[in-house]
Amino acid sequence: MKRKVSLKDIAQHVGVSTALVSYVLNNQEKEKRVGEEMAARIRKAAGELNYQPNQIAKSLKSGKTYTIGLIVADISNPYSANIARIIEDEAKRNGYTVIFGSSDENADKSWDLINVLLNRQVDGFIIAPSEDSESQILYLKENNIPVVLIDRYFPSVPANYVAIDNCKAAYEAVMHLIRNGYRRIGMITYKTKLFHLQERVKGYQKAIEDSNLLDDQSLIKEARESNLKEEVQQQIDELLSLSEPIDALFFASNKLAVNGLKHIKNLKIMVPEKLAIVGFDETEAYDLYHCPITYVKQPMLELGRSAVKLLLDVIKDDSVKDISNLDTELIIRESSGNKK
Amino acid sequence: MKRKVSLKDIAQHVGVSTALVSYVLNNQEKEKRVGEEMAARIRKAAGELNYQPNQIAKSLKSGKTYTIGLIVADISNPYSANIARIIEDEAKRNGYTVIFGSSDENADKSWDLINVLLNRQVDGFIIAPSEDSESQILYLKENNIPVVLIDRYFPSVPANYVAIDNCKAAYEAVMHLIRNGYRRIGMITYKTKLFHLQERVKGYQKAIEDSNLLDDQSLIKEARESNLKEEVQQQIDELLSLSEPIDALFFASNKLAVNGLKHIKNLKIMVPEKLAIVGFDETEAYDLYHCPITYVKQPMLELGRSAVKLLLDVIKDDSVKDISNLDTELIIRESSGNKK
Repeated sequence: MKRKVSLKDIAQHVGVSTALVSYVLNNQEKEKRVGEEMAARIRKAAGELNYQPNQIAKSLKSGKTYTIGLIVADISNPYSANIARIIEDEAKRNGYTVIFGSSDENADKSWDLINVLLNRQVDGFIIAPSEDSESQILYLKENNIPVVLIDRYFPSVPANYVAIDNCKAAYEAVMHLIRNGYRRIGMITYKTKLFHLQERVKGYQKAIEDSNLLDDQSLIKEARESNLKEEVQQQIDELLSLSEPIDALFFASNKLAVNGLKHIKNLKIMVPEKLAIVGFDETEAYDLYHCPITYVKQPMLELGRSAVKLLLDVIKDDSVKDISNLDTELIIRESSGNKK
Repeated sequence: MKRKVSLKDIAQHVGVSTALVSYVLNNQEKEKRVGEEMAARIRKAAGELNYQPNQIAKSLKSGKTYTIGLIVADISNPYSANIARIIEDEAKRNGYTVIFGSSDENADKSWDLINVLLNRQVDGFIIAPSEDSESQILYLKENNIPVVLIDRYFPSVPANYVAIDNCKAAYEAVMHLIRNGYRRIGMITYKTKLFHLQERVKGYQKAIEDSNLLDDQSLIKEARESNLKEEVQQQIDELLSLSEPIDALFFASNKLAVNGLKHIKNLKIMVPEKLAIVGFDETEAYDLYHCPITYVKQPMLELGRSAVKLLLDVIKDDSVKDISNLDTELIIRESSGNKK
């Protein structure tokens, strides 16, 4: 590699002291003593000579790396990818870069990632925590490592988070189906202890209760992530072959909905005539299904930006405490049209 | 934050010298002089005391950060997200973490990202280069910074890359349509100088030529990324209203195909009866379209893994030179069925 341009090189080029160049390029207090014109000349020379500050040496001095560790469930899921993109943009706007990893909804993998990122001396974490990772969040908190949870949180673990109001989101989705005349509404969710998914079930149940519909537990199905495709298919078959079959189906995630819709399409079930559908989160597949799918839209931009903002606040001042349960929007389309 | 556990703490705990602990935990040559049992005891103590090596101090010493900089076009596009996931997994398997950024197909943004990542002292880059970023790749090469291009490359810039054989992939897709009886085949691609997309047009043209079909340039349309939705719609309208309208349409990317299919769905055009379709790259939307879409499938796992492997080889030995043009697979489904 070519020898790196040093502060001394810039100083010689401009004809000033190395100390002065250092003051200007490190944006230190004393810069105020340097005239604006001189500061501009030094900056211009640094640019022309292609000066690259050594971030590692700088980090050791400041104790900061200007790096955020991001742990998502799976970067190849459109939900995670969209959030990651927004966090990346917002972090960059604030002079931070993002190191990311996918936990695969696995607590062991999540713990590995946290350790790798701690070794990289990230200034803080944004984490969509996986099941059974409570102790990891507590560990970060106990060690005063800045952390903000996104999308999910644990009611038993006091931590800063940015999420949506999952109960309300599900309640509104199911109430919409009920208002449009559906009475036997099934729900397919994950088999998980994750609080945000349990809240979606709670919202479903509250809507059924508030509408005085039959509270039939057999209409709620739980699929395991490890065997998703097969279990979703089987559960749809079961819900459709009940003595009183379902007339509507609410999916608790985009991945569940996409798997379910593939099966419903293969079965040639007319949507919404034979079965109304509401999904959760976005996917292009909702638009291209022969009947466009109604879905719960999360405020992705606000989620991602708020999480970065909150984390940077915590990095500055570790006494900052904040939680957000943002509102969602129900995007109503043909798949949940009035029952005929 | 709690005081970090030091090598001295571990040494006191085990009852040996700090130097010995350092030898063992830094995997240095002299470890061979330490008995295996003692090395195991030291490692166990480090684990129990939760010792975290300071990666920054280690980096200054070794000159390595064990970090890869990844620049994709847009992490929220399923193609980029899938590749990123595979690169992340493969990097982790090799003890590397990934810092990523999206260039948005914008050369200025790409240059900003390269500089941010250079400041973070990444050991090397994997880049899906954007249009007009040749000089950036040359800059990295001239400065002996390890770089591997993925998905795209510039014929004028000698660089290591892992990509697919785009010309062959498009040729096979169009030949398949011709074999199934289609004669007026349109193509929608991006308005771009990017070589890999020009190769897809070349493959299309070669198939038309080899089959002695009419080489009609008006069947090839170019949409601008900045106004994609509107231009794709308009171009489909034009192709369908020619005096001899198209009977098949080949899309050069998943994003083009998804936009096009939305319009074709709104126009209620029967696929493949009125219009056969072949897409490029994967998206769940291909599965959920009322008629499953035939598409060119890239060997994502091989692309991502090969890129990481090649980069690590280059980091070890900067004289390593390698290029790969991998084969694709045409996934044939109903949207390109025999013409009736």
